[in-house]
Amino acid sequence: MDVQFKKMQGTGNDFIVVKYDDFPFEEKLSQLAEKICDRHFGIGADGLLIVNPSSIADIRMDYYNSDGSIAAMCGNGIRCFSKFVFDEGFLRTKQFSVETLDGIKEIAIIEEKGTVKSVEVNMGQVTYDTEKIPVVSEDGYFINKKITVGGQDFIITAVSMGVPHVIIFTEKLDLEQIKFFGPLIEKHAIFPKKTNVNFVHRIDKDNIAVRTWERGAGYTLACGTGSTSAVAVANKLGLVNNNVNVEVEGGNIKIKIKESGNLFMEGPAENICSGRFFFN
Amino acid sequence: MDVQFKKMQGTGNDFIVVKYDDFPFEEKLSQLAEKICDRHFGIGADGLLIVNPSSIADIRMDYYNSDGSIAAMCGNGIRCFSKFVFDEGFLRTKQFSVETLDGIKEIAIIEEKGTVKSVEVNMGQVTYDTEKIPVVSEDGYFINKKITVGGQDFIITAVSMGVPHVIIFTEKLDLEQIKFFGPLIEKHAIFPKKTNVNFVHRIDKDNIAVRTWERGAGYTLACGTGSTSAVAVANKLGLVNNNVNVEVEGGNIKIKIKESGNLFMEGPAENICSGRFFFN
Repeated sequence: MDVQFKKMQGTGNDFIVVKYDDFPFEEKLSQLAEKICDRHFGIGADGLLIVNPSSIADIRMDYYNSDGSIAAMCGNGIRCFSKFVFDEGFLRTKQFSVETLDGIKEIAIIEEKGTVKSVEVNMGQVTYDTEKIPVVSEDGYFINKKITVGGQDFIITAVSMGVPHVIIFTEKLDLEQIKFFGPLIEKHAIFPKKTNVNFVHRIDKDNIAVRTWERGAGYTLACGTGSTSAVAVANKLGLVNNNVNVEVEGGNIKIKIKESGNLFMEGPAENICSGRFFFN
Repeated sequence: MDVQFKKMQGTGNDFIVVKYDDFPFEEKLSQLAEKICDRHFGIGADGLLIVNPSSIADIRMDYYNSDGSIAAMCGNGIRCFSKFVFDEGFLRTKQFSVETLDGIKEIAIIEEKGTVKSVEVNMGQVTYDTEKIPVVSEDGYFINKKITVGGQDFIITAVSMGVPHVIIFTEKLDLEQIKFFGPLIEKHAIFPKKTNVNFVHRIDKDNIAVRTWERGAGYTLACGTGSTSAVAVANKLGLVNNNVNVEVEGGNIKIKIKESGNLFMEGPAENICSGRFFFN
């Protein structure tokens, strides 16, 4: 059967968006994700976003990783999802709410000359609760603690933003090292559900650079929840202000910490192509 | 502007097909290839196939690598191209000719139950002429000669099938080694225009396995001209028969050497999706 789709990207993190009505087979969505995201036998993407109605928010986003697994939330994905539902006329207002498995997210569409320039997402707050992350800890927190992997020591902080994130500050971002130590930290025994791993270079009070090794996806060009978690931790440790530009490999994301303590992520969302996928 | 496209694949080698009439800007085709083939910011593919009228054959195929460079010929690409022009009704017969920069190729469409099952391509013959390949040689040939790269010796044979190919027989196909030595051999000083590099494991007289490091594209799941060149060389050296199954990472390709000495490649070609690409 043919499945209508749009391919989009936000800071190089790329997604296929499908309306549930165009593929109303919940039990086959995981299989669709695997097939459609395959970069040689499918269209190719980091994940599949499904547009669904919601009974508790304005609309609902379901997210599948390229391996077919479900993820609670995706920061770059929800920006693309939000542009899609706004452009397609699902919602008439520039502010709306999106239900995810990580709760309801408040969205603001930022337009310029009649087109969506960027999307702001209220990402809420990170949690340092080690049971929620989860990470094994004797004293209930995991801030600036030492772990050893591959014969090297790392000072890490563990948080959760719907998905687990480790933050490691480093003087230099070395892709070879990130690809070597990333998977070792991802699968370290203290993380019973594994973890995403963010290497963070603090440039100054207003700028950081982040490279993320993603749980289940490997190295990607950008990670929205990782960038947000990095700013949350850097701010808590007094390394950055409340308004931070995050440079990722695929572009730039802005993170604001507002008075409520909530983190707001603003970044681009772009259309690549649309069409019919031949599913069989 | 919007560009109509179809994404297709043959043994995991994936292509975007565009009719020249839908993008009649020859000077921008290289840029289109780079953008449309990018796997995160574009649709994602190994190359771009342009459908053009021909004054010397039934139809013409122009091929662009994902880096925007032009290639004379692509074995998996021409199978996808042939299925496309047949399915779209450009040609009414199952046998037709396709003009490429490597000359005119004769095509046979093989149908099953009214759909294209596979495509056979008369690939012609390889040349061992070192000036045509090109490869630097003092005695005019390059068969079973030793080169040293990265501190390791390799016995290689160099041929051309429109594009230069190096054939290296090996007891074991080791992906790590292919990715390490592939680019070193590709850019070796004896190849003034660089070269494709094929690592070949002979299974028996009727079966070989090929893994190709492609010039300008890196490691791919399959290479049609590489698989054909591998059989030509293996047959010349007495290692295989005239009818060989080639196992590539993305599937299987059959190569027949007919009495004329010409090599016929038969393999699959599949539709993935079609739609509009937002070019800007």
